[in-house]
Amino acid sequence: MDLVANVLLAAGASPAMIHSIEEIPDFTPKAHALYINVGTLTPDWLPAMKLAVQVANENKKPWVLDPVAAGASGFRLKACLELLRTNPTVVRGNASEIMALFKGSEDSNSKGVDSIHESTDAVEAAKSLAQISGSIVAVSGAVDIVTDGQRVVGAKNGVSMLQKITATGCSVTALIAAFVAIDPSRAFEATVSALSMFGVASEIGMDMAKGPASLRMHLIDSLYGLDQATVLHRVNISVI
Amino acid sequence: MDLVANVLLAAGASPAMIHSIEEIPDFTPKAHALYINVGTLTPDWLPAMKLAVQVANENKKPWVLDPVAAGASGFRLKACLELLRTNPTVVRGNASEIMALFKGSEDSNSKGVDSIHESTDAVEAAKSLAQISGSIVAVSGAVDIVTDGQRVVGAKNGVSMLQKITATGCSVTALIAAFVAIDPSRAFEATVSALSMFGVASEIGMDMAKGPASLRMHLIDSLYGLDQATVLHRVNISVI
Amino acid sequence: MDLVANVLLAAGASPAMIHSIEEIPDFTPKAHALYINVGTLTPDWLPAMKLAVQVANENKKPWVLDPVAAGASGFRLKACLELLRTNPTVVRGNASEIMALFKGSEDSNSKGVDSIHESTDAVEAAKSLAQISGSIVAVSGAVDIVTDGQRVVGAKNGVSMLQKITATGCSVTALIAAFVAIDPSRAFEATVSALSMFGVASEIGMDMAKGPASLRMHLIDSLYGLDQATVLHRVNISVI
Repeated sequence: MDLVANVLLAAGASPAMIHSIEEIPDFTPKAHALYINVGTLTPDWLPAMKLAVQVANENKKPWVLDPVAAGASGFRLKACLELLRTNPTVVRGNASEIMALFKGSEDSNSKGVDSIHESTDAVEAAKSLAQISGSIVAVSGAVDIVTDGQRVVGAKNGVSMLQKITATGCSVTALIAAFVAIDPSRAFEATVSALSMFGVASEIGMDMAKGPASLRMHLIDSLYGLDQATVLHRVNISVI
Repeated sequence: MDLVANVLLAAGASPAMIHSIEEIPDFTPKAHALYINVGTLTPDWLPAMKLAVQVANENKKPWVLDPVAAGASGFRLKACLELLRTNPTVVRGNASEIMALFKGSEDSNSKGVDSIHESTDAVEAAKSLAQISGSIVAVSGAVDIVTDGQRVVGAKNGVSMLQKITATGCSVTALIAAFVAIDPSRAFEATVSALSMFGVASEIGMDMAKGPASLRMHLIDSLYGLDQATVLHRVNISVI
Repeated sequence: MDLVANVLLAAGASPAMIHSIEEIPDFTPKAHALYINVGTLTPDWLPAMKLAVQVANENKKPWVLDPVAAGASGFRLKACLELLRTNPTVVRGNASEIMALFKGSEDSNSKGVDSIHESTDAVEAAKSLAQISGSIVAVSGAVDIVTDGQRVVGAKNGVSMLQKITATGCSVTALIAAFVAIDPSRAFEATVSALSMFGVASEIGMDMAKGPASLRMHLIDSLYGLDQATVLHRVNISVI
């Protein structure tokens, strides 16, 4: 939550972390986008997540789902599948998470949050999931894949050391929510852009980093300092 | 909680994070000050907060309230107002939070933790709130305002980039609690001093920072390394 | 939890943070080691902790206990003593925590997570606790003590500024769990090695640090970059 909030602040967004079901009717209508992350899921949190989604949908607010470790347990997979049925604007996971959602069954090899598949292994699963759910589906990896079920785009910025920093996946999903908030009608473009910007910031940060902790710092600083010329010069997006 | 604890450790305090109502009767009497922060409030936490306050009051321990995002929901505002009635030694918020407490009504424009008002807009609200509650009231901003209802002092150290780091407000409130613990009879002076020291540390940190994440690091390092001469040379406090 | 996860990732482990009792039957058998930390204990968490321990024991998985602030309250001490009776492979605490467990009674002077005793004060308590529990017992301090009840080894790497960073104790316990996971039959050697490696990484980090926050960063980077030659050259372990 700490890294997610700092990434959002660095990017110019205004995050608020609301856990309590009591606050959702008052607060969620004020937000420009909702971000649901099942990272440390407990049964107590699910009703608040579902109500937040309902309020967001009723208020035509975009919302984004991060199905963290979707295949790690039956309980978690069921929760993710229930959330998936309530029309997320975007779903962002790693290959194992997206494939677990697609298969809709527990992945007995899941190690938790770390993917055991390449993003490119999940292209067909992502396309099918996008068609079924009506959501934009993004798969993080060496190449980030984004699809609406028809189009498939690859965003190639980023560095592998991000996998050595906890919550970088959660953070890029949050950034997608912030980008989608700007223009929900262009959620596909917003998703690709957020993944690319985070990737570019990580590349710039990597030039100064000596390991994962300094990369984490330089990544946030670089995201804060990104300008249009740097982004346009570095961004590497292509149709797949 | 991570940043708050590290700020307290850097300043020489000994923080302990106690959530459970079961531990409060044993633990709270041992603390030199209590800090209540409603950042991620849920109904489950309120009874523990209220008992901790009661135990602190019975043991004549100072306690400090951070009414994070007080105006974000009716539930949150009600909780903050209830806590405010139980005699906090100090209340520290941004202008929007202090004005929401003063008005005692939900602020329908609240964006959450980020203030939409200047601290100087909240001077009269802060004075009135201090008179009603009997607490020292501090309002963070470009100028930090501190009042006991009669005196009003402005502490002008600090840098605007602190707003791009999550939990810096929470951290300075924790620092106030640590300072008040030293001599609860001089809570006004302690509050002004804590705000100034945090501001000075942020200024020194800013000289080395390249963005919000490196500022966060240098801020803590600078707080740890502060000496009396530097503080006396840089501190900028004036009666308003 | 943030620092703990980043330390584990930097060391090459694959952490997953599971809170919910619903997930334990599915997830815990897949883990190579279980880590139980009572840092922010509430009664709600205890059943999940106990079930995770039971599943780990049934599956012959090693598990490691961090009795954070064991003496801070009667509730916490009772919980730690109950967990201690369920056969942890390793218990790691500071001197005050280990002495509180040994005495089995609330330490009325406890300040929380910060030790008020030297690790060398706790050698006899640690030995007795190891004999009673059948666990490897480690006591962090200027010299880290590790005992199986017979052998006592001192690991002398490390820097005192680690005490100014929250969760470094929690992190080294997590590293012990990761090391024990490799070969549970050699838990004694794994515990000494993990403490030494963390200590070596902190020494290398300290050469670049300007305060506790930069030490935290350089510690993780150094742990990530450690090679065998550096470890063998620097490690300082002796029989006590």
